[in-house]
Amino acid sequence: MAGDGVKLLGMWASPLALKIEWALKLKGIEYEYVDEDLSNKSERLLKYNPIHKKVPVLLHGDKPLPESLIILEYIDETWKENYPLLPEDPYERAMARFWAKYNDEKPWHTVFGAFCKTGEEKVKAVKEAQETLEPLEELLKGKRFFGGQSIGYLDIAFGWLAIWVPLIEEILGATFVDESTLPLLHAWFQEFPNIPLVKERLPPREKLLPFLKAFRESLISCS
Amino acid sequence: MAGDGVKLLGMWASPLALKIEWALKLKGIEYEYVDEDLSNKSERLLKYNPIHKKVPVLLHGDKPLPESLIILEYIDETWKENYPLLPEDPYERAMARFWAKYNDEKPWHTVFGAFCKTGEEKVKAVKEAQETLEPLEELLKGKRFFGGQSIGYLDIAFGWLAIWVPLIEEILGATFVDESTLPLLHAWFQEFPNIPLVKERLPPREKLLPFLKAFRESLISCS
Repeated sequence: MAGDGVKLLGMWASPLALKIEWALKLKGIEYEYVDEDLSNKSERLLKYNPIHKKVPVLLHGDKPLPESLIILEYIDETWKENYPLLPEDPYERAMARFWAKYNDEKPWHTVFGAFCKTGEEKVKAVKEAQETLEPLEELLKGKRFFGGQSIGYLDIAFGWLAIWVPLIEEILGATFVDESTLPLLHAWFQEFPNIPLVKERLPPREKLLPFLKAFRESLISCS
Repeated sequence: MAGDGVKLLGMWASPLALKIEWALKLKGIEYEYVDEDLSNKSERLLKYNPIHKKVPVLLHGDKPLPESLIILEYIDETWKENYPLLPEDPYERAMARFWAKYNDEKPWHTVFGAFCKTGEEKVKAVKEAQETLEPLEELLKGKRFFGGQSIGYLDIAFGWLAIWVPLIEEILGATFVDESTLPLLHAWFQEFPNIPLVKERLPPREKLLPFLKAFRESLISCS
């Protein structure tokens, strides 16, 4: 039925879908969450995201919208008054978009890239991932969160790191974010998952850890 | 000198830098164009885009901004009143962003991907590129330009196709956009380069054609 209802097609272990939930919760928007089985994609998902066939998809009434960063901007523009996510100043907005895109292009690939490596290749890939995380330290200077004193658009964009990276570190036996070299990022890693609205929707560790281990095995056996 | 002057670091054959010029011209913003030698990157480029070290970079006063789509949004937000580029409605804005991102992720890669192939591989790659261009036909239904009756954000995002693809077709001896199967896109290919502000800054054919031929040779010899 068409209307103003908000529905999110996600997958419980998807960091991208979680971003949308954080944004909706910050804005105080009620929504229905629908968990998709990505091994057997629903007609609904194929209909609403025919190009990429991926989650997340936001349905606002009968209007479907894919792509996490595009959904975030849509949410921010549609519910302007409730808790602005992007800064107001055009240059600060542009730089926030720059770093969110950087996250999608660099840490996302280097972290998951390291995840499927073993031996010497793993050591090299972990170093590469560390290097792509280094610029984030600078962004946190003089601030508690990327958004300043409270979380904003960039905390949402980078949020997956604080949740997935510690588990990936545990599985790999490697450190991506060292307290001595990246102290601000390390502190943010402790703080972000403890924000109440983040904490209440964290994928359960006992479910996510075996999921990631199995995911890693599948990556290694394919490479 | 810091100030409100607008400077664009580009490279004459870069489709990405050209996007920014089109946007500035549509907005009626005066700017200084600086051509960068990408085989010997300037201190200026490395200073203003230390992460990616690429053109385009927009300098607005002393504020540097990289990444073509992010620059476009900045221009649209900074000079709001002069010729809006993105639509006003949040959903239409989101869909325009979706297709601009699609352009960067799909046609951009498939077209240049096909460009470096030969023989059977080329035939397959051209077909793949054609498939990524097909969804654009739908976007032009009932419209003269992607932006409607006049050009907008998506015409700027897709604009490179109308200029580079015909030359790539000529070099490869292959057709990406056939008049019979993609008539609207084919018509837009004829119309877009003839818009006066586009026409006045087209890279000269006698310079671009040998440049692209040499680029192709370098790709083939590397693959």
